[in-house]
Amino acid sequence: MKIVKVGAEVSIKRDIDTGTEQQREAVEAIIAQVKEQGDQALFELTKKFDGAELTSLRVTEEELEGAYAEIDDELISALREAIVNIKDFHERQKRQSWMTTKEDGTILGQKVTPLDSVGVYVPGGKAAYPSSIMMNVIPAQVAGVERIVMVSPAGADGLLPASVLVTAKELGVKEIYKVGGAQAVAALAYGTESIQSVDKITGPGNIYVALAKRAVFGTVDIDMIAGPSEIVVLADKKANPRYIAADLLSQAEHDEQASAVLVTTSQELAEDVAKEVEEQLTTLPKRDIAGASIRDYGVIYVAQDLVEAIDVVNQLAPEHLEILTEEPMNLIGKIRHAGAIFVGPYSSEPVGDYFAGPNHVLPTNGTARFSSPLNVDDFTKKSSIISYSKQAIEEHGRKISALARLEGLEAHARAIDIRLEEK
Amino acid sequence: MKIVKVGAEVSIKRDIDTGTEQQREAVEAIIAQVKEQGDQALFELTKKFDGAELTSLRVTEEELEGAYAEIDDELISALREAIVNIKDFHERQKRQSWMTTKEDGTILGQKVTPLDSVGVYVPGGKAAYPSSIMMNVIPAQVAGVERIVMVSPAGADGLLPASVLVTAKELGVKEIYKVGGAQAVAALAYGTESIQSVDKITGPGNIYVALAKRAVFGTVDIDMIAGPSEIVVLADKKANPRYIAADLLSQAEHDEQASAVLVTTSQELAEDVAKEVEEQLTTLPKRDIAGASIRDYGVIYVAQDLVEAIDVVNQLAPEHLEILTEEPMNLIGKIRHAGAIFVGPYSSEPVGDYFAGPNHVLPTNGTARFSSPLNVDDFTKKSSIISYSKQAIEEHGRKISALARLEGLEAHARAIDIRLEEK
Repeated sequence: MKIVKVGAEVSIKRDIDTGTEQQREAVEAIIAQVKEQGDQALFELTKKFDGAELTSLRVTEEELEGAYAEIDDELISALREAIVNIKDFHERQKRQSWMTTKEDGTILGQKVTPLDSVGVYVPGGKAAYPSSIMMNVIPAQVAGVERIVMVSPAGADGLLPASVLVTAKELGVKEIYKVGGAQAVAALAYGTESIQSVDKITGPGNIYVALAKRAVFGTVDIDMIAGPSEIVVLADKKANPRYIAADLLSQAEHDEQASAVLVTTSQELAEDVAKEVEEQLTTLPKRDIAGASIRDYGVIYVAQDLVEAIDVVNQLAPEHLEILTEEPMNLIGKIRHAGAIFVGPYSSEPVGDYFAGPNHVLPTNGTARFSSPLNVDDFTKKSSIISYSKQAIEEHGRKISALARLEGLEAHARAIDIRLEEK
Repeated sequence: MKIVKVGAEVSIKRDIDTGTEQQREAVEAIIAQVKEQGDQALFELTKKFDGAELTSLRVTEEELEGAYAEIDDELISALREAIVNIKDFHERQKRQSWMTTKEDGTILGQKVTPLDSVGVYVPGGKAAYPSSIMMNVIPAQVAGVERIVMVSPAGADGLLPASVLVTAKELGVKEIYKVGGAQAVAALAYGTESIQSVDKITGPGNIYVALAKRAVFGTVDIDMIAGPSEIVVLADKKANPRYIAADLLSQAEHDEQASAVLVTTSQELAEDVAKEVEEQLTTLPKRDIAGASIRDYGVIYVAQDLVEAIDVVNQLAPEHLEILTEEPMNLIGKIRHAGAIFVGPYSSEPVGDYFAGPNHVLPTNGTARFSSPLNVDDFTKKSSIISYSKQAIEEHGRKISALARLEGLEAHARAIDIRLEEK
């Protein structure tokens, strides 16, 4: 890993992948085909892209139950415990509708309502992560969304991976369709004979899925479109270089585009971590991917002091931040931008990826400056409540119509005046 | 207004205006020019589009204070009262950071942090609404955003409207630039010599502003891109047709594309309202605009009963909903989708546009299915906090690494294992 002194500007921001012209056109064509032909398009495209000849898209109860044979009991109990933790954390985010009343009879408030329906995209093959299903489904369930649909591309055998099915079953998701890619997104947005449209689509996917989500945004809501993943570790001289190297590599193995950064006040630690990374890398199954990520996007910044180091962290606005310093909890008040903050030596990032409870869907690519982890609010919306009494309109009506006239909106003013005339 | 019985499907949804090819290209060129030439581009484009030859972009303290001479004292006191109401309502939305602790030493939480900086776009000329400035600035202030910037195109005289300046001064906004259009959005997103970039851009604008916001989205956050405005009035036979007609017209005067809809259980009321609308229309200054809106997008649905009527309202998912029925408060639990709900005969929509306190920036075009009024949350972001103790990792580490291995992520598993080995 290259070691550099903190310079004028640091950034992990990269251009958003908006695909090639060809990819964008392919996605547009797929969306148009699904809008026009419905299920027939889904069957055709599934045969073409996934090699599966299906006669029905919906996963059956038998498929769900059959999947349990393939998954170890201990894993199932770990999954169940993770589900409990994630539910518990998200339950604490729930907001109540509220109202406030005034003596003149005015009632104002915010009504919080869950979305009616949500579609969760689950990528196919090796990227079909059970953790990602939990992280997308649970906040929607906690929010109170009544209809939660899952879509995922079938393998050539016409089946979904057992781990996906077991996770869905453990979560109580019952409406699952074997369809993926841009065609699945189009079906969720516009509906077909067998798939009713939803209000919001979440979940990760390849570039075709991302482009399709972007294209249907507005018709339905979408979650963020995730960029490459990042970790920043903030550490002082007392931190354990083996821990840090392992954590940097856990990020790097995701993707050649992933970025692993150490910001430290210690030149010695910087050198130790660089050595440890090389060493641990040699025995990793995904050493090619992780190696490329470390080479192209890995960097160790050496700062003069913690103030400068924290400044670097805030400039990076990382998706994941680990703090391995002497008094880590005392620093979180200084962190302005980070998706998730892992505090202290035992809070390795995978703790949050799988188990602790907070969501692992986090703002990437510097968007932690203005975005949040996926959360219960993302699956609700608010409606303002305004109730004015006769007394209130008589007291304040003239001011309201004056403000309307200041903006040249006479019909607005008259809507108030007409209530004042008739008293 | 046309009166129709409730049919199979109702909708106010219209295609989102994505501009013409020419408009999109113009916006791209402007953004590129601002990125390249900075302030120089802003001066040039301001001369070209607004006819103002400026030597400095920033509004001076003298300009702010001079504006007071042009605004009536009574209006200023109405503005001040509105500001108090809007602040009060938004203060109630504020969220606290929170934490939860477990006996094994685990600490989990959500840290709520205001955005660092926000830019508010204020349209020029007649569309420079003081109310819109209040509704965009106040939630950001209440959230705790430190730097709030306003941009607005100057008139040919090189000045901003007095009402804009007075509103800004009353709100305490000090950083105001005389620049509008796509060039202002580009400056806010990428920064120039005199305008530092911001994290989020909000506020309404014409198609060029909307296209520019769409183009910079991702680099910075944006608020929703508003479509044409709508009102739906839900009324039974006892409602006052004059009130309803006035409220429908207050929406219709905004824009020829605006939509005014009555949903009622009474054929008689339907006919009375249709008549009243025609009558009130004749004396309105904006009768051409309002007339076109009513003709093209105005409709009265007659429903068999309240159940059917409410179903229509939920299908429409209106920006503004007024309920003028016998027991209006009892119905709000049945409303699943609406930006703002105005309850009872005295809660005319302009009450909310200017004065009551809730935000008037609302989800349009059916997006109330999944979007909320502009609110304090829009100007904050959350960071997850995860702190695991040695005890916690020893107790749960094996489960975490097992879940990581299920997903084929060995480096994730090893980051946990390395902490378990060293105990």
